[in-house]
Amino acid sequence: MSNNLTSRKEDYSKWYNDIVKKAGLAENSEVRGCMVIKPYGFALWENMRDVLDRMFKETGHQNAYFPLFIPKSFLSKEAAHVEGFAKECAVVTHYRLKNDPNGGGVIVDPEAKLEEELIVRPTSETIIWSTYKNWIQSYRDLPLLINQWANVVRWEMRTRLFLRTAEFLWQEGHTAHATKEEAVAETEQMLEVYAKFAEEYMAMPVIRGVKTASERFAGAEETYCIEAMMQDGKALQAGTSHFLGQNFAKAFDVKFADKDNKMEYVWATSWGVSTRLIGALIMAHSDDEGLVMPPRIAPLQVVIVPIYNKDAEARQKIDNTAADIMRALRAKGISVKFDNDDTTRPGWKFAEHELRGVPVRIALGARDLENNQVEVARRDTKEKASYQLDGLTDAVAQLLDDIQQNLYNRALQFRAEHTTKVDSWDEFVKVLDEKGGFVAAHWDGTPETEEQIKEKTKATIRCIPLNNEQEAGVCILTGKPSIQRVLFARAY
Amino acid sequence: MSNNLTSRKEDYSKWYNDIVKKAGLAENSEVRGCMVIKPYGFALWENMRDVLDRMFKETGHQNAYFPLFIPKSFLSKEAAHVEGFAKECAVVTHYRLKNDPNGGGVIVDPEAKLEEELIVRPTSETIIWSTYKNWIQSYRDLPLLINQWANVVRWEMRTRLFLRTAEFLWQEGHTAHATKEEAVAETEQMLEVYAKFAEEYMAMPVIRGVKTASERFAGAEETYCIEAMMQDGKALQAGTSHFLGQNFAKAFDVKFADKDNKMEYVWATSWGVSTRLIGALIMAHSDDEGLVMPPRIAPLQVVIVPIYNKDAEARQKIDNTAADIMRALRAKGISVKFDNDDTTRPGWKFAEHELRGVPVRIALGARDLENNQVEVARRDTKEKASYQLDGLTDAVAQLLDDIQQNLYNRALQFRAEHTTKVDSWDEFVKVLDEKGGFVAAHWDGTPETEEQIKEKTKATIRCIPLNNEQEAGVCILTGKPSIQRVLFARAY
Repeated sequence: MSNNLTSRKEDYSKWYNDIVKKAGLAENSEVRGCMVIKPYGFALWENMRDVLDRMFKETGHQNAYFPLFIPKSFLSKEAAHVEGFAKECAVVTHYRLKNDPNGGGVIVDPEAKLEEELIVRPTSETIIWSTYKNWIQSYRDLPLLINQWANVVRWEMRTRLFLRTAEFLWQEGHTAHATKEEAVAETEQMLEVYAKFAEEYMAMPVIRGVKTASERFAGAEETYCIEAMMQDGKALQAGTSHFLGQNFAKAFDVKFADKDNKMEYVWATSWGVSTRLIGALIMAHSDDEGLVMPPRIAPLQVVIVPIYNKDAEARQKIDNTAADIMRALRAKGISVKFDNDDTTRPGWKFAEHELRGVPVRIALGARDLENNQVEVARRDTKEKASYQLDGLTDAVAQLLDDIQQNLYNRALQFRAEHTTKVDSWDEFVKVLDEKGGFVAAHWDGTPETEEQIKEKTKATIRCIPLNNEQEAGVCILTGKPSIQRVLFARAY
Repeated sequence: MSNNLTSRKEDYSKWYNDIVKKAGLAENSEVRGCMVIKPYGFALWENMRDVLDRMFKETGHQNAYFPLFIPKSFLSKEAAHVEGFAKECAVVTHYRLKNDPNGGGVIVDPEAKLEEELIVRPTSETIIWSTYKNWIQSYRDLPLLINQWANVVRWEMRTRLFLRTAEFLWQEGHTAHATKEEAVAETEQMLEVYAKFAEEYMAMPVIRGVKTASERFAGAEETYCIEAMMQDGKALQAGTSHFLGQNFAKAFDVKFADKDNKMEYVWATSWGVSTRLIGALIMAHSDDEGLVMPPRIAPLQVVIVPIYNKDAEARQKIDNTAADIMRALRAKGISVKFDNDDTTRPGWKFAEHELRGVPVRIALGARDLENNQVEVARRDTKEKASYQLDGLTDAVAQLLDDIQQNLYNRALQFRAEHTTKVDSWDEFVKVLDEKGGFVAAHWDGTPETEEQIKEKTKATIRCIPLNNEQEAGVCILTGKPSIQRVLFARAY
């Protein structure tokens, strides 16, 4: 039984699109650049969201909701921000349609033109800081720790499902602090929350680092990031946390009275992850048979497939055993489905659940049951084994943990094998072209050199890792002195 | 300690706005008609959403996500729908801003005009049914039971926080069925889910009914609704469930092959509730001291306020007891906060938690503790009583149940007192003007009469109750024959 997926080797990009579509995660909509997230994809996002939301609340954050629209003039208030975000965005200019008096159907009513155009939020710093101005008067109002789950729109010209879409779902944290130190600590704390989520739930190892000045968020003083390695050797930025300094407080005049009643500008952070994480998840773990879901965030952890024969009594026994297994697994908090659909055969079901990446499959046949056994298959390695019914629940729970750990280890090993120290330009280009992955190389620290390297090779500096080893060297391109290696890669 | 709220008697509308703002639920944003949902208001919405989401999943629905934008031409495909929704909406006409070459800041780039304008979704039937066309081929693909949690925009001219805002949050279910009977059963099932949620969680009794033809959703063949009664005697539509017939299937050409391989149009339903429910919740239960939250959806169910004196030992004992009480309540699934903020006095805290509607307040003072007692106050009746520490957890759990039940009973009694049968026009007008509430009266069944009654009195037919008693009579306005009474009211 084949899922008719393009293989990774054949066409990595097509393989990715095939999985997204055939596993029922998402599809392109009839609106340019916007996707439809299908039920299976949305169930995955819900699981990711629920874990992150709990982590945010455990670190003292509350959710709120701010308007979808941002007045055009707000974008202009922070000089760097407008450069970064005012370009490709959806602009609302009118608030009414009417019937064409000339019979041309429904048209925009020219009389319903907005005095000031509204931008569909590409990110919400401006609307939120214009609101915070009224919420913050004194040090007693700080810190203000707020998160929003929302849709945002960036008018991307070239889109790919989950990785880059005009509309996407995300969360954006926006916090306000009395001191620089507190704001920096918050920025770093949230980076660590993201890293922990990526590693412990998505089984995806990440490098924690900071961006170079030219890769910073528009309006940030420092952008922290987590960077992951995909199976094609390209990097993917999986989350960012920004220290915004007092830039937005100054742009929106947000001051607070400190304990000595002195007025000071507020310090800010913002941080976000999006449905892009689903793209990362797919490319980190999946194979030529389809998705591979890490058990801790899989929408479905275990599927039970009955292997019926014509014997009604045996069938009844299979159904009863399945019911027992399901009850026991659910009592342990494991999600499980009994796929007893009569219209498809077991082989078809096996392929379907492999395509959808269900971590564990249990097959129940009459002969196995006579021996008090079931056949258990794990999705990550595709190994099959007979398990005793007695103790099955604990064994399955253990297997799910093993799969989670194995996926992480496998990805970690892949990354280690695809991280290369290079000391010359020729070697740099060779590694990028032939092997891919992260390339740790010396750079002279100037944006000009960074830009030249990008133009010549399409590789960007993914990050300067946190606690980076300081090591004197010379820039691979210019030969000028350098104090440390930085991580280059081609990236999504 | 006063919360400085306007009283209901003085100015009901101002009382409502005062509560929304002072209790920290929401505020107007700088974007016309759009609100900011503040953390306390959003926590309430999260609780409501989580309960509803569980009820939807228990009835077999899955969540998905469809685009924010709808191509203008899609709206025109269903004739009645476009009449209802194409009027006041946000229209995206451009996809880029640029720097004004004349130095006027950021302007809309005239070269980035969309070929076809996009509408910010006011509801998603059209974009979803254009998608369902590709998802439905055969009877095996049915029923398709999907829900979406989303923001929607309707360009309302007169807005009020939660009750009517340009942007609001909601859920919209969109289901597809093989037969009319199944679709009608789904419509009725979801109405019952909404009614159950309103009554059992919001403690708000509702009338289940159907709308008259002129009050139907644009594109529906039948609109079912739940109607609630507010404390000022006005009705509020709290949720709707629509049987859409084959209208959208025909508009978007969605057919399926039935078991005999005959192609048939698909039958549809849609149903939704929104953040408007929060407005209903406030107006159903709250009083002149502030919000009254039904325990089952309250963001915080119990608050503990310490009454410290200067004795450090007594203070320690209070803190220890509070920790014990919290642990025990949380183990029972009750949310609780220890408000030991040193910067405000107990009286201020009492008023604040009353304003925010926390169902139960426990005050812990040194003298009470000497007697192994605490003072427990319930928000709904404002009664206070001494409770023994021994058995406190069970007593508080019981009290929360009692409050939930009392709120429901109180609202039910209010509704009963404000439902009046009338048999003449003069009486009809008098009851509407002097007493308010639901007026059960005979109507001749024509849209013309319905419209005349609305023009004369501002009262609309809220619904024809399900299983309505059939009773011959004469229309209060025209004297023509009528087969049943319908429920009139002035409404939000």
